[in-house]
Amino acid sequence: MQDTATPAAAALTSEQSARAVGALRDTLGADVVVLPAEFAGRKHADWSRTPSADPVALIRPRTTEHVATAMKICHQYGQPVVTQGGLTGLAGGACILGGEVALTLERMNGIESIDTVGAAMTVLAGTPLQTVQEAADAAGFMFPLDLGARGSCTIGGNLATNAGGNRVIRYGMMREQVLDVEAVLADGSVVGGLRKMIKNNTGYDLRNLLIGSEGTLAIITRAVLRLRPKPHAVSTAWCGLPNYDAVTTLLREAQERLPAGVSAFEVMWPGYYDFVLQRLHELRAPLEGRHAYYVLLESNGADPERQAAAFEDFLADMLESGVIADAALASSEADAAAFWAIRDAPGEYPRLIPGRVSFDVSFSITDVGEAANRCEARLRARWPNATILVYGHLGDGNLHIVVHEPDWPPTTAPEVQQVVYGVTGEMGGSVSAEHGIGLKKLKVLALSRTPAELAAMRAVKAALDPLSLLNPGKLIPP
Amino acid sequence: MQDTATPAAAALTSEQSARAVGALRDTLGADVVVLPAEFAGRKHADWSRTPSADPVALIRPRTTEHVATAMKICHQYGQPVVTQGGLTGLAGGACILGGEVALTLERMNGIESIDTVGAAMTVLAGTPLQTVQEAADAAGFMFPLDLGARGSCTIGGNLATNAGGNRVIRYGMMREQVLDVEAVLADGSVVGGLRKMIKNNTGYDLRNLLIGSEGTLAIITRAVLRLRPKPHAVSTAWCGLPNYDAVTTLLREAQERLPAGVSAFEVMWPGYYDFVLQRLHELRAPLEGRHAYYVLLESNGADPERQAAAFEDFLADMLESGVIADAALASSEADAAAFWAIRDAPGEYPRLIPGRVSFDVSFSITDVGEAANRCEARLRARWPNATILVYGHLGDGNLHIVVHEPDWPPTTAPEVQQVVYGVTGEMGGSVSAEHGIGLKKLKVLALSRTPAELAAMRAVKAALDPLSLLNPGKLIPP
Repeated sequence: MQDTATPAAAALTSEQSARAVGALRDTLGADVVVLPAEFAGRKHADWSRTPSADPVALIRPRTTEHVATAMKICHQYGQPVVTQGGLTGLAGGACILGGEVALTLERMNGIESIDTVGAAMTVLAGTPLQTVQEAADAAGFMFPLDLGARGSCTIGGNLATNAGGNRVIRYGMMREQVLDVEAVLADGSVVGGLRKMIKNNTGYDLRNLLIGSEGTLAIITRAVLRLRPKPHAVSTAWCGLPNYDAVTTLLREAQERLPAGVSAFEVMWPGYYDFVLQRLHELRAPLEGRHAYYVLLESNGADPERQAAAFEDFLADMLESGVIADAALASSEADAAAFWAIRDAPGEYPRLIPGRVSFDVSFSITDVGEAANRCEARLRARWPNATILVYGHLGDGNLHIVVHEPDWPPTTAPEVQQVVYGVTGEMGGSVSAEHGIGLKKLKVLALSRTPAELAAMRAVKAALDPLSLLNPGKLIPP
Repeated sequence: MQDTATPAAAALTSEQSARAVGALRDTLGADVVVLPAEFAGRKHADWSRTPSADPVALIRPRTTEHVATAMKICHQYGQPVVTQGGLTGLAGGACILGGEVALTLERMNGIESIDTVGAAMTVLAGTPLQTVQEAADAAGFMFPLDLGARGSCTIGGNLATNAGGNRVIRYGMMREQVLDVEAVLADGSVVGGLRKMIKNNTGYDLRNLLIGSEGTLAIITRAVLRLRPKPHAVSTAWCGLPNYDAVTTLLREAQERLPAGVSAFEVMWPGYYDFVLQRLHELRAPLEGRHAYYVLLESNGADPERQAAAFEDFLADMLESGVIADAALASSEADAAAFWAIRDAPGEYPRLIPGRVSFDVSFSITDVGEAANRCEARLRARWPNATILVYGHLGDGNLHIVVHEPDWPPTTAPEVQQVVYGVTGEMGGSVSAEHGIGLKKLKVLALSRTPAELAAMRAVKAALDPLSLLNPGKLIPP
């Protein structure tokens, strides 16, 4: 569609902002609305290291009503708002550009109820992911979303960014873990009835529209999460494979033949494997020799004995048919943890490769191998000595690429990005598989979205937030 | 949010419509744009028996470009459009109110490609569901959506209504079966790049906004469908249970303990069971005696031998612990088909109970038992001799209720609806679990959606279809 309604950037003078903050504080009180002098030193940047200004005030609501009241006042005064969760984002979506108030969900932290018959949990949006995981476990269920930031990130942030992680292949993204959300719109009205129905076709899917909108359409205040049966058996193997066709064959065969399906299928290219084993001495090589690809295969299920036998039979078949060149089966939790430690090595990047350029892209599963080849070849041609690490969740097409060379000038990062995003654009991939757009990927969003799609996004934004109060300047390119 | 922008009903004079149709025919030709005299006798009502007028013209596009051109012209002339698929809907969403052109996807029928590595199929929106199921099967996969209307309904209609069916408990609704959609918006612009990524966080989820919007936001022209591994083993049992707690216990235990999970969990109340066995003589009772509830339990998996053993072990445990009072295990496909025939008996309703009043509601799984009790008690108090049939897909909270008494006057149906929708409203249920709102449920939508949600829906509608050209008068109450 044609762009008829680009939301205007809302910019208040400092006097106007002061009046808005004054009205907020008068109505909600000094406990909820805190002034800059009172929160000096507080961090407002996320894990992406995107620079952040200080907000003109910090709102710390305790209830949905507080949020609704705050937005009514902001709407009246034209005061822009940035919602903050655990500040663990990787795209700069929660940083302050200047002139906004910050609204943190940190006090809306807690589990309201667990429905063990309906397998549903109602939580406040500021609840950390790990708290939810532990409460689900204690109630005899699993909450499957899992990320490295689990201790700090919040359910509201997971929803705002439609978080992914390692188990998407089996359980889906965050949007698949949610039955309903409650949210406050830009004018302070509250939508979402915290309903628990799995089947509910009653008009537009506002829930999915708000999920992944990165704080630009609403402030999510509560959610009904869907709980899953707790797995009683985990089978894990580390596999070496001879070529990319073997990798996709293994994926398909595992999905079709493992009784409990595939709960993780993590692919690592040899450059990644060699690098992390060389640099992290606590890691042990699961296999002898070197392979063209490494796969961490996991299957989570209900029936320990039968599952273990089926998993072993499957691996034996794959070895015999040459799909797998070599494999190590985890015979204990410690074995499995040692395999996962190799895949989780990126947690050490800040120490090992502080100046890295990182990518979170995705492709059709068919294209992932070729996409990785093209990126690596073009990067290598230009920077022959660069460290290039490639790995990803192949089952959902998600590829992580990390590029680094010591002593690169600051001008190199944009050149590296041009190479990788260039391949992403030409192969119809996504410039953001799971981290979102925020501020960091605004410039490349058009590689994955057509002008008509961007126009439709702007029209929806203008419809639900006509004054552009919610997280202005993020997600939607100007 | 406040209602600031209710889409106006677009009403053209017959002269204005004639000009619009003339422009459509001049541009797209007489092959694509057909006049009333040329389609006399063609049906425009769906399976809900909602009365339908004739459209002022019938557009039969062969390509997305045809659809885009048609919408550009309709946009220019203010001509409203009703999109039609297989006309198997149950809510009157595709019927003609008067003055619209009908746009049928019947010529956009076919599978464009199957990606066996990425497990994805690209199809035209007019392709029948059964064609997709058969093509997936031939390629070694399964397309899990399944409905009684499979031979006639189209993928576009399944998307427009977010179709459900029997396998939602395991595979989700139609929106979970789709990687991307291509669609034409009201102004003729085309959105959706037919991308195959499972992880793709690049802005607002337009795909899910269009899915389930019942033709009011866009015309879906193509889709990339997600294929699933083909199951190699099916275990089926018919169970009699002593009370509703036992039903929910069986559901939870089956989900947690069956290695391949639960692919169907169909619950039938004894009134339903007695009625269909009495009236359909080809049905055989799987168990002796009468039970408080009947459950058809199915588990689809990868490993025939181990799965059968695990399924039998599970049933034995449930019998021993008293959760199940009695059970029959299908030992052949014929046995399983005989069990399913009892659940599929509603296909005979048009013959058996032509004047019935039917409901497709959903509740939290916890509430389904109580909701059914309340409905039945209140209906029985008012109409002691009515036939009341209750059954549903418990795993997703979906309850079907059918009420009938011979020789009811036409005024009774609204009274029956008041009872059942009253219970639905007071228990926070959904007035439409899977059939959609269309025209038939416009009046009760407000029982499941708050005024703020309806206002947000209207704002989105006005943003994407400001002239209210697409299926006006449906889905959104005036």
